[in-house]
Amino acid sequence: MGNRLEDIIADKERIISENIEDKYLTDSLGRIKGKASYVIFPHTTEEVSEVLKYAYENEIPVTPRGAGTNLTGSTVPEQGGIILDLSKMNRILEIDYETLTATVEPGVVLQDFQKEVESKGLFYPPDPGEKKATLGGNISTNAGGMRAVKYGVTRDYVRGLEVVLSDGKVVTLGSKNVKDSSGLSLKNLIIGSEGTLGIITKCILKLIPKPEQSVSVIIPYANLEDGIGSVIEIIHGNTGPTAIEFVEREVAKLGEDYLHIYFPFPEAKAYLLLTFDGSEETIRENVEKTKRIVLDNKAIGFRQLSSEEAADIWKVRGALVTSIEAVSEQEPVDVVVPIHKSSEFIQFVHDQEKKTGMKLIGFGHAGDGNVHISVVRGDLPAEDWIRLRDLNMSAIYDKATELGGLTSGEHGLGLTKKKYFLKNTDENTIQMMEMIKDSLDKKHILNDKKSYIR
Amino acid sequence: MGNRLEDIIADKERIISENIEDKYLTDSLGRIKGKASYVIFPHTTEEVSEVLKYAYENEIPVTPRGAGTNLTGSTVPEQGGIILDLSKMNRILEIDYETLTATVEPGVVLQDFQKEVESKGLFYPPDPGEKKATLGGNISTNAGGMRAVKYGVTRDYVRGLEVVLSDGKVVTLGSKNVKDSSGLSLKNLIIGSEGTLGIITKCILKLIPKPEQSVSVIIPYANLEDGIGSVIEIIHGNTGPTAIEFVEREVAKLGEDYLHIYFPFPEAKAYLLLTFDGSEETIRENVEKTKRIVLDNKAIGFRQLSSEEAADIWKVRGALVTSIEAVSEQEPVDVVVPIHKSSEFIQFVHDQEKKTGMKLIGFGHAGDGNVHISVVRGDLPAEDWIRLRDLNMSAIYDKATELGGLTSGEHGLGLTKKKYFLKNTDENTIQMMEMIKDSLDKKHILNDKKSYIR
Repeated sequence: MGNRLEDIIADKERIISENIEDKYLTDSLGRIKGKASYVIFPHTTEEVSEVLKYAYENEIPVTPRGAGTNLTGSTVPEQGGIILDLSKMNRILEIDYETLTATVEPGVVLQDFQKEVESKGLFYPPDPGEKKATLGGNISTNAGGMRAVKYGVTRDYVRGLEVVLSDGKVVTLGSKNVKDSSGLSLKNLIIGSEGTLGIITKCILKLIPKPEQSVSVIIPYANLEDGIGSVIEIIHGNTGPTAIEFVEREVAKLGEDYLHIYFPFPEAKAYLLLTFDGSEETIRENVEKTKRIVLDNKAIGFRQLSSEEAADIWKVRGALVTSIEAVSEQEPVDVVVPIHKSSEFIQFVHDQEKKTGMKLIGFGHAGDGNVHISVVRGDLPAEDWIRLRDLNMSAIYDKATELGGLTSGEHGLGLTKKKYFLKNTDENTIQMMEMIKDSLDKKHILNDKKSYIR
Repeated sequence: MGNRLEDIIADKERIISENIEDKYLTDSLGRIKGKASYVIFPHTTEEVSEVLKYAYENEIPVTPRGAGTNLTGSTVPEQGGIILDLSKMNRILEIDYETLTATVEPGVVLQDFQKEVESKGLFYPPDPGEKKATLGGNISTNAGGMRAVKYGVTRDYVRGLEVVLSDGKVVTLGSKNVKDSSGLSLKNLIIGSEGTLGIITKCILKLIPKPEQSVSVIIPYANLEDGIGSVIEIIHGNTGPTAIEFVEREVAKLGEDYLHIYFPFPEAKAYLLLTFDGSEETIRENVEKTKRIVLDNKAIGFRQLSSEEAADIWKVRGALVTSIEAVSEQEPVDVVVPIHKSSEFIQFVHDQEKKTGMKLIGFGHAGDGNVHISVVRGDLPAEDWIRLRDLNMSAIYDKATELGGLTSGEHGLGLTKKKYFLKNTDENTIQMMEMIKDSLDKKHILNDKKSYIR
């Protein structure tokens, strides 16, 4: 198959066909490895289209990837064939002040984009934890992040997409326009589809004016339930927090030990971390109002953080996964439950920990019920680890479903969460997804057998 | 076909098969009339499912309708068969304070829902002009409205849907959860699909806490260009207006004459109307800031309205279409263009008016480039009217496309806007929509030949 591909991609260094490095064959956890005949680095939509035409004609599987930061095996080329690495399509094509949009290629890295946009007095609100992910990857998983409480998720900031379908056809979905009631919203079908329906080659993203200031507060509680309980009251208080995160004391300690930075209120058993943005006056008003609400709702303290303190605390929050990984292998769980069920869900996880002896660490986005659990291996031997891990993950996903929750709030399903999703989703809905897959990717060459595909 | 349908719908008064009234055969403009064998008023999802199973087996066309307030012929049963009227499925099933969601049937009327929700201290931000539309209709057209500048459109407030597919299968799409990266977003595919892919039988809608207060201001300009020009500056000023509407003096006068209520600044040639909501302090700050911005950007005045004045002015704004219709037949155009192109677009419309002698009246949502044009018949005889109307509509849609705009910002395409959409959309994208239609409605029984369907 090489000849034709080498005609399409002229530069030798943009096709790898021998000694493919492991990093291309896996995800960011590096535990599952696929195989592939080619890694291809396209530079243009036309090249993507030609590669897909070739793959389509010859029924060659294609696995797209950006920065490979996913946690679900979604970039593992399990079917072999071609790895389509879009990381070199990484130009910011336009920042349009008048329509408040940016037009970018899919390989632009989130943190580079945020920096560029903010240097122009604008703001891209989605803020997933992994800053080195590409925007194409963020769109493919509908990535969430901490600022979702106020601003929403990646989906809410995608105005338009250029997409290459499995047979090489190029479609333009959406536009710079704010409103759109013109036919099916295919753009929204592509967002979150994990590379199973088409390859994103261009993105028009919505920007907003940069908020003037941002302030963080930390609120300690005697137990997590009290903390989660007050989240609903905070939201109803109409104080517009940007983020509402929760951290249990025990989890914070892991981060503290790792970074040697310490939380205030060490006597607490759980914390809420909130941020507020806007003008100085608006923030002052909202912080004061929030303080009154939480102190009336079982908080055992309240502290507005200086910018240095805030930077430190958010550094610990940001390092939680790393600090766990530094100690042991771990498997991430990314369920979402209706906000007020978070506390019951976490209680279940604690009970599960006691019952099975498996270390389960929880933290996450209290403001939207998106709970991250790390299933931690510790010093378990391989066989016990796999058995206990799967037993616990299965129980956790079942419980989330029982509470009205979903398998993934922001990571996507990929290869490793697919079985839990399929188990907990009704047959008619899965069949409807498959009908879409069958119709848009007739030969099932794009990221097949992942996400919702049986 | 009657026997089986009469088994499904037991109550005689819920099936009409003789002397079907005209109101069921048309849209709110009443100019195009279809034909039908049955009007059916289901009460439950099961009834909808059984009716569709029957229609599917027998390849009978089905035209869904709610309140029939659409302006695009989307409820005209052009293909004959069954009219499925969902207006009796109009229960608010739950208002859930803890997840800030409401679960409703599709036939609930927008204004009833807004009233109920606000009586509980909550708020449903989407606010399309037509308050008597049903929520199912709002979702099917992804209805927009005035508050979209701050809050977004209907799509942004749909958390979950229950949908009956063309073969009668029931699917549950989305949930009460805030975040969702669990498989294809089929919910978003249904939103805005104008009844072509399935029948919505239940909706989970997102609510927010009710804003404390709302204040309106009116800003006069020497010409519309100056007004539109300052919209970008207002948005960049980060003052968070809820609505930014524009009205030309000439258009305001129609409303004034109709209602005998008068705008301040009668010497102006155009106005911006803005609203702000939030706490008293936040509003005061934002109004002051906006005043400085607009007076630095060619506004010739600025007035914060008392609540009585605001009610009057918004009454005029709300009555513009009615005041036009009171004088003459009119055809509504609902294009959207990138915000900063609104002024060029309206200038084109004025030139077109001069050139062709056709009365074209423009007003709309300046904050999102959603421009409403009324093509007004006046005393033109039928033949001239149809020729001049179509000539002007065609020119208007072509111009919108040239400026990067879209056929419909919030009304949908239905029967009457379809040809303009098809003409101005690329072939690959239309084909992709058709692939979805073919896969989800194999026999093309649901609202066929409407919206994007050739």
